[in-house]
Amino acid sequence: MRHDHLISAAQLSRADIEAVLDRAAEIDDDPATVRERHAGTVLALCFFEPSTRTKMSFDTAMKRLGGETIDMGSVESSSVKKGESLADTVRVIEGYADAMVLRHPSEGSAKMASEFVGVPLVNAGDGAGQHPSQTLLDLYTIRENAGLDDITVGIMGDLKYGRTVHSLSMALTNFDVRQHFVSPESLRLPRSVRYDLHEAGAQVREHEELAGILPELDVLYVTRIQRERFPDEREYREVAGEYQIDPETLDEAKESLTVMHPLPRVDEIDPAVDETPHAQYFEQAHNGVPVRMALLDALLSGGERR
Amino acid sequence: MRHDHLISAAQLSRADIEAVLDRAAEIDDDPATVRERHAGTVLALCFFEPSTRTKMSFDTAMKRLGGETIDMGSVESSSVKKGESLADTVRVIEGYADAMVLRHPSEGSAKMASEFVGVPLVNAGDGAGQHPSQTLLDLYTIRENAGLDDITVGIMGDLKYGRTVHSLSMALTNFDVRQHFVSPESLRLPRSVRYDLHEAGAQVREHEELAGILPELDVLYVTRIQRERFPDEREYREVAGEYQIDPETLDEAKESLTVMHPLPRVDEIDPAVDETPHAQYFEQAHNGVPVRMALLDALLSGGERR
Amino acid sequence: MRHDHLISAAQLSRADIEAVLDRAAEIDDDPATVRERHAGTVLALCFFEPSTRTKMSFDTAMKRLGGETIDMGSVESSSVKKGESLADTVRVIEGYADAMVLRHPSEGSAKMASEFVGVPLVNAGDGAGQHPSQTLLDLYTIRENAGLDDITVGIMGDLKYGRTVHSLSMALTNFDVRQHFVSPESLRLPRSVRYDLHEAGAQVREHEELAGILPELDVLYVTRIQRERFPDEREYREVAGEYQIDPETLDEAKESLTVMHPLPRVDEIDPAVDETPHAQYFEQAHNGVPVRMALLDALLSGGERR
Repeated sequence: MRHDHLISAAQLSRADIEAVLDRAAEIDDDPATVRERHAGTVLALCFFEPSTRTKMSFDTAMKRLGGETIDMGSVESSSVKKGESLADTVRVIEGYADAMVLRHPSEGSAKMASEFVGVPLVNAGDGAGQHPSQTLLDLYTIRENAGLDDITVGIMGDLKYGRTVHSLSMALTNFDVRQHFVSPESLRLPRSVRYDLHEAGAQVREHEELAGILPELDVLYVTRIQRERFPDEREYREVAGEYQIDPETLDEAKESLTVMHPLPRVDEIDPAVDETPHAQYFEQAHNGVPVRMALLDALLSGGERR
Repeated sequence: MRHDHLISAAQLSRADIEAVLDRAAEIDDDPATVRERHAGTVLALCFFEPSTRTKMSFDTAMKRLGGETIDMGSVESSSVKKGESLADTVRVIEGYADAMVLRHPSEGSAKMASEFVGVPLVNAGDGAGQHPSQTLLDLYTIRENAGLDDITVGIMGDLKYGRTVHSLSMALTNFDVRQHFVSPESLRLPRSVRYDLHEAGAQVREHEELAGILPELDVLYVTRIQRERFPDEREYREVAGEYQIDPETLDEAKESLTVMHPLPRVDEIDPAVDETPHAQYFEQAHNGVPVRMALLDALLSGGERR
Repeated sequence: MRHDHLISAAQLSRADIEAVLDRAAEIDDDPATVRERHAGTVLALCFFEPSTRTKMSFDTAMKRLGGETIDMGSVESSSVKKGESLADTVRVIEGYADAMVLRHPSEGSAKMASEFVGVPLVNAGDGAGQHPSQTLLDLYTIRENAGLDDITVGIMGDLKYGRTVHSLSMALTNFDVRQHFVSPESLRLPRSVRYDLHEAGAQVREHEELAGILPELDVLYVTRIQRERFPDEREYREVAGEYQIDPETLDEAKESLTVMHPLPRVDEIDPAVDETPHAQYFEQAHNGVPVRMALLDALLSGGERR
């Protein structure tokens, strides 16, 4: 991979993606090989918004590479509150660290910030924008469970607002994957994303119900439908109820179906599904560690940085 | 010690306790012997409630064993706020870490959480429930100062709500220890704890005043009486005032009396006591490090985990 | 350097300062020489007030020396909220750590705390009091850019409330430096500081406008004028506007002028200045790492501690 920064999954060619996933698989097989690889190296965790799993898994990844992390802390406890610009904050922090992970509520912020820093920067979510390391771990999980060739993937839930979904569906166009989108009319994939998918030559179909296409799926990727998207509680409950999964729902699925979810879940997947072999969402979260180890390793080992 | 998880001090036999305390003493004598012992190992700190000393001493313990820690951060900055269940949170985090320390406001939460994870979990306080590593460091401090055979221990203050006290008094029944409980009537030991102590064959007596039994004590364990337990401020002041210690109070004590306190203290022990040889409460806090090192070492080195 | 604790820059002789700056320069040149120097050593970060750069740069410094840090966390998540005294908190924490960095809102708190602990303590800001590691990194930056002999330094902005300024100006009296102070009448240097500077034999002059002395300056140290110092917004804007720097302002300056700022900045320095060779404020922030490495190394290697 030849990149200074990782801002968007769209930067990554099929070869880039495969290189990261291959490396992640190697690391996952034998983590001992990289245990001291980045000793003496410091990664800054800059989270301008709350995060548990992304932050903890980057933290873990860096430490399992032998490196160290420093944490900017919450916005409330930082000089951001004194009116400092993001550009200034990252320019200060780049002097402390060898690489930086940034989450920020504003779309485009990671791109902007990356223009001010000379150390590798990973976008860990910029508002409604991108979150490419999530896409990589999603791809890794799909590849481990179903392969990435000649498969059928269903993506269900809130397809309008979910940055995870937009990014994953675009990345899947690099592979031989049929994509089905399942959502209420009001939360269907935005026109712009549909256009991009079409341009990329994707095989895309949209549905309002899961039942019709469930038997075809190799992977079902479920996302949370958020209460706040609906004007009233009753409407939310009706709609959300139709996109929930339980063991009975899955009776019609292939035995080998892989169920994924970016987590946290609320009611979208009944806990009884956890006991079935379909459930791979915790494994998916855990895959964040080897995938981020592979990613950090690539960025920290890159030679062409200014 | 043969346990997957440490949820309650009641799990621990006398032999288990002695093994941990012996190991802690070894480590305290020569910390260099374990300096790299758990290099490459990651401990997750999951504190759903504020904590200074417990969290910092687990953090220190892990680092002094050569390991690393990752911190879930505060509940406000975590996905718990998005409605994630505790079972889901710990199942995600177990994929990042080799062991886990959990503090949570609900009694029974640590037991429940431990049923979902395959890495060792230490309960660092579950509401009014258990906090077994505190009990171990209390026992260690008593043993270092007075031994654990044929001694007389007084426990004073809020005996009704203090989980520290309940857990310690039960653990002391493994040893040849006479226990005296000193508290206002309204804050005496709960009936259930008295019953358990009786069943365990403990030699237990209750008092409303310290004066009568002070001269007999080898150890005096003081706890904080909390303002919020009393309907009005005046009543609190009157009661609390009777259970405060100053150098004059201790005139009647044995020269060798050890005074302990789980900290933080407010007014229960006059700072002038700090200068006397009786004061062992800061040492007691410091003992948290070797004791937790010994405990983590035992859990991380255990062979029988699923 | 022969000190148990670093509470105030006033403790430091010219020789002490030069020893730290020389060591910092050595480390900056070749950080690999100290990469494992303090392995197995733990530094406690105790910040009772928010901080980004000071905390992160101490954290980085300790880790780049091979050591570990433990973080007290915010006051909200600590036992301070239960009413614990600062003396008790630091006495507990000294049992976990080999050294301690303390920031606290009360002037004099670091001095007081240091009397209770047997490990080296660095004052990282005590209210309106001292912040000596900031002074050291300021001196380092001046020395790297302009030398510390026979130079002219201008210090501009809020000279009344800025502890950074008071501490730096006193430290500069150890060197052959002419000092010019530029501020609105209402924010001029306090009488007590002027007196101390006079006693120390400093060559000090005060100005209300930068223009007159700008051409003479080798270094211009800009500080933030805070809104809350002014009764109304309009007055603030008028005054603050007169003490802002942009590329045009600097037309009259020496080509070699070094512009510094303790950061965070708000409007005091136009971002267009960042592109000029004058701008050294990000470099100044980055210098916090080698300077604090040198400082921690000196304190942790000291032999005369009780």
